[in-house]
Amino acid sequence: MESLSIGVDLGGTHIRAGLVSETKRVQQRLQRFAQADREPEAVIADIVAMVSDLEDQAGQTIAAIGCGIPGIVDVDKGIVYQSPHFPKWQDYAVRDALQAELGRPVSIDNDANCHALAEWHCGAGEGAASLIALTLGTGVGGGIIIDGKIHHGTSGFAGELGHMVINPEGPPCNCGGRGCLEMYASATGLSYLARHDIDAEDLSKQAAAGDDAARQLFVQMGGYLGMGIASLVNVLGIHTIIIGGGVSASWDFFQPALQQEFERRSYRKTVELTQIRRAALGDDAGVIGAAYGASRLLPKA
Amino acid sequence: MESLSIGVDLGGTHIRAGLVSETKRVQQRLQRFAQADREPEAVIADIVAMVSDLEDQAGQTIAAIGCGIPGIVDVDKGIVYQSPHFPKWQDYAVRDALQAELGRPVSIDNDANCHALAEWHCGAGEGAASLIALTLGTGVGGGIIIDGKIHHGTSGFAGELGHMVINPEGPPCNCGGRGCLEMYASATGLSYLARHDIDAEDLSKQAAAGDDAARQLFVQMGGYLGMGIASLVNVLGIHTIIIGGGVSASWDFFQPALQQEFERRSYRKTVELTQIRRAALGDDAGVIGAAYGASRLLPKA
Repeated sequence: MESLSIGVDLGGTHIRAGLVSETKRVQQRLQRFAQADREPEAVIADIVAMVSDLEDQAGQTIAAIGCGIPGIVDVDKGIVYQSPHFPKWQDYAVRDALQAELGRPVSIDNDANCHALAEWHCGAGEGAASLIALTLGTGVGGGIIIDGKIHHGTSGFAGELGHMVINPEGPPCNCGGRGCLEMYASATGLSYLARHDIDAEDLSKQAAAGDDAARQLFVQMGGYLGMGIASLVNVLGIHTIIIGGGVSASWDFFQPALQQEFERRSYRKTVELTQIRRAALGDDAGVIGAAYGASRLLPKA
Repeated sequence: MESLSIGVDLGGTHIRAGLVSETKRVQQRLQRFAQADREPEAVIADIVAMVSDLEDQAGQTIAAIGCGIPGIVDVDKGIVYQSPHFPKWQDYAVRDALQAELGRPVSIDNDANCHALAEWHCGAGEGAASLIALTLGTGVGGGIIIDGKIHHGTSGFAGELGHMVINPEGPPCNCGGRGCLEMYASATGLSYLARHDIDAEDLSKQAAAGDDAARQLFVQMGGYLGMGIASLVNVLGIHTIIIGGGVSASWDFFQPALQQEFERRSYRKTVELTQIRRAALGDDAGVIGAAYGASRLLPKA
């Protein structure tokens, strides 16, 4: 029987779950709305129901179950310290809760780390030893893979790439700082640059229709993102950079400015070594990464 | 007989070499002027002569010899790609040259990485699993230790912490960018902030004598350094930060602004976890780190 795993991707708007094969394909997908104001237990019940549905479809019990969660996740302790999308998840022992309901080991990690792991395993970063993945959504998430392993830092605090300072006098950010990368290179950032609330998808359509103002916003965004990536490459010496998340759909509009600004701020040798690529797995990345993370923890058959 | 190792610290102005004991003390120190315009072979000859002198003083042959070198060092290949202080060192196979002259294995690494390793081993970062060390001199050097190992990145390009972008419209930097951390938090940076050439040591004396303008420059420098550290901690999730190098002698003048700006730009939990400390080993750090790096490569007796 084929060895399958289940990945769950808990997002700001949806809970996605999928059955992932050894050939790295998502065979079945399920999706429910995530409601940020619910108690953690209600979200856990949703996840358990989705796992059960997927097992019914597979006709077998699945040993490898992984879950990606937005926020600061302590992988060793199985705790979510805080989550931007789920304010009630404070120091919540999510792994214990899932394991108690599912009756088997479950692996958890930060959602952006799962994205990074998936792109490294079978996406745009396949074959690279190390990579940095940025997910551009409402904010900016990040995952760092060093020699095939997620770099978690102390207690899971690594990869907060959206909170690099890009402009000391820039707009105030949720983190308490000002001018963080997230305030320029995300849906939130595009609204700041436009000086009014905009929808990133609408803006992309306007840019595609040839709207100069829309295109200019993506050029500005790309420039700031290029600066952030120049900083990251200088700090980490990692040369495969993957850009994913919803806002990466506008890749064609921000990529040239990104690459130009990155090159302007980097040593020649660094430019030669560095590949900045669009993510390949789209919405499946979170599910695949969570599933793969879980499968790596199982004893080899 | 006590097991000794030799560390060599090749700097912009001096070559330092020392005999380091198992108890982490530098027993003997030698120093020569470094002359940037000399051929690499002449510098190698100086190092070999210093090693020989130290062996005479020790009365024994030393197996563990390590050398810290400014610039981009590929530790696996033993090559210096480029060095800010030694323009003639381009893709120079320095390890082969040293090994041929000394007739035994030699380890090499970037000088700032040696500083970081020393502070981790027996300095201000002793006991931490991971740390980030910044050396504030003419420029800003950096070393990152993750779980007791230097993080080199691909081909030794990691740790260029001085080239994080701090201010997109800031002063032009040698790297081709603008507003890099190095342009604020180093001797070069202090001159930029003062708008004229200054000597960092003289400035420190003026600050100590109560000169307001001098003190204000260190406050500005500390603020920028605090921003850079906030970015680093967000990216790496590493919470022990060590500040060394010549300019760290002015610690009392820039530390309060550094800590304040770091706290302003960081999550509460991050502030709780993070310790920003002054380096403990002073000028010995480079020698101790190079020697310790070499001793770790030897088979256990």
